[in-house]
Amino acid sequence: MTVLEKLLDGDLSALARIISYIENREENYKKLLAKLYPKSGRAIKIGFTGPPGAGKSTIVNEISKMLAAEGNKVGIIAVDPSSPFTGGALLGDRIRMHDMPSDGSVFIRSMATRGSTGGLAGATNNVTIALDAFGFDFVLIETVGVGQVELDIINTCDAVVVVLVPESGDSIQALKAGLMEIADIFAVNKADRPLSASIVAELNNVLDIKREKTGWKLPELPTEAVNNKNIDTLLQELKSFIEFSQETGLFEKHRREQIKKKIFSIINFDLAGIMESKIGGVENLDSLVNDIFNGKTDPFTASKKLLKLSDLD
Amino acid sequence: MTVLEKLLDGDLSALARIISYIENREENYKKLLAKLYPKSGRAIKIGFTGPPGAGKSTIVNEISKMLAAEGNKVGIIAVDPSSPFTGGALLGDRIRMHDMPSDGSVFIRSMATRGSTGGLAGATNNVTIALDAFGFDFVLIETVGVGQVELDIINTCDAVVVVLVPESGDSIQALKAGLMEIADIFAVNKADRPLSASIVAELNNVLDIKREKTGWKLPELPTEAVNNKNIDTLLQELKSFIEFSQETGLFEKHRREQIKKKIFSIINFDLAGIMESKIGGVENLDSLVNDIFNGKTDPFTASKKLLKLSDLD
Repeated sequence: MTVLEKLLDGDLSALARIISYIENREENYKKLLAKLYPKSGRAIKIGFTGPPGAGKSTIVNEISKMLAAEGNKVGIIAVDPSSPFTGGALLGDRIRMHDMPSDGSVFIRSMATRGSTGGLAGATNNVTIALDAFGFDFVLIETVGVGQVELDIINTCDAVVVVLVPESGDSIQALKAGLMEIADIFAVNKADRPLSASIVAELNNVLDIKREKTGWKLPELPTEAVNNKNIDTLLQELKSFIEFSQETGLFEKHRREQIKKKIFSIINFDLAGIMESKIGGVENLDSLVNDIFNGKTDPFTASKKLLKLSDLD
Repeated sequence: MTVLEKLLDGDLSALARIISYIENREENYKKLLAKLYPKSGRAIKIGFTGPPGAGKSTIVNEISKMLAAEGNKVGIIAVDPSSPFTGGALLGDRIRMHDMPSDGSVFIRSMATRGSTGGLAGATNNVTIALDAFGFDFVLIETVGVGQVELDIINTCDAVVVVLVPESGDSIQALKAGLMEIADIFAVNKADRPLSASIVAELNNVLDIKREKTGWKLPELPTEAVNNKNIDTLLQELKSFIEFSQETGLFEKHRREQIKKKIFSIINFDLAGIMESKIGGVENLDSLVNDIFNGKTDPFTASKKLLKLSDLD
């Protein structure tokens, strides 16, 4: 059997190997993804984003245990863009798995793609395709949500939970940063802390605008992940949202948009390579660099010229 | 006077306005940058990267005070990709400025570009051009260094300081993550902590390889930023590196490479826009999305076709 066949046969070590292959964008990773893609589409993908220390991992762990207890297979992708500094991805996986079902119903994979070719953009989405094709019923993606990574999550998930903590100012910052637009559910975790009730009330007011537009109740739930308080309600609300989304056609519309974005993202990635070899081959590139270095022109004017010269525009 | 003229005349509020304009990529931001660029090139640009809580801000503050005391004008860019969650950029600036010279010799600007068009990529570099053209002698850029942001720093700075703390495993993680390649100086901050000496020794062994290759001594300094211990030595080592770099021709070679990378980065950004409008206009895009949604093809195969159809490849 090939590694791909082993993966489709449910072999977890084949899955792990293929994830690494995709993550590192090795030679034929796109051909592999093209083969995996038709087997994907069945998994429900849920994103969890929020500040470091908000309790995302604990929430994701509890949710995955509940889903597994209902007979589901759950894949978790923990994206930690700063992980080279924060203890290392693999170690984190082992610590987290300690508390989890040992029957193979829950699989955790951390991604610390710092420095990998092409960066994080698109990588989470590609890895999700592998987990989906493997046969997980749910794929949970967890991230602090920074820039490109966050976009990747919106372009990958069917539902997004934004996890906040009751710290003064954080909820307003989150709303300003556009998290209202991407959130389908807000969890105000560590709800035993003083400011919790006022944060929930604050959110409640602002979210009414979005509620009117979409028809979705957009819940903001106080949770206490470490004490497993209200996590069952969070899971219920998630299921309600998926149901709402499927019934109203939002689910399908969203997935079609994601396909379009995926096409753009693949082409954009390819174009960067094409451009670098075309522009790199332009005869007068070095003399142009020289002119810029000597202050005769600037990179912005020069780029315009090169784009014309290279026939790319 | 135009805002640009005011900036070149030393008006700090004009500088602040132009930075926002560039950061948000407003309509004519590239024309503006093309005008600023010829005035830039004089500032020495130094990057500081490392894990959250390592003490980067304190180190940067102390270094900038020392530089200001020597009669230099110092611009600081604090890039915090997760800042919507961590208290807010503007507030941070005000707190930090409290302790700083009030004669205008030090200017701090935080960038919290999450959600801004085009993301962080290139934005730090563009803002640095404005600070450089304004007339700062030194521009210090501080970041936790995640993915694209980190690349931006390497493609912007003349020297990079990697700040670590004596936590077990962190130095090894940092080396694995490729920080050895980008560091010109290591600062092991919070050097009063137990593991400090062993971390410095550990680094020392690994760095010998790079020392032999470059001829630069690549110091790893124990520092205690909060007690201002050894920060003067750090500044001295930075100056030695710049001198070494200028004498050996590394400085100029590096700046020429940065110009080439800048050209690639501008064109890549433009191409994304060109591609989206070309591909978006392809007649059969919607039917292709439909085919993918129904499992008849996949985004990887479809992208290849579209790239051919659009004449972009």
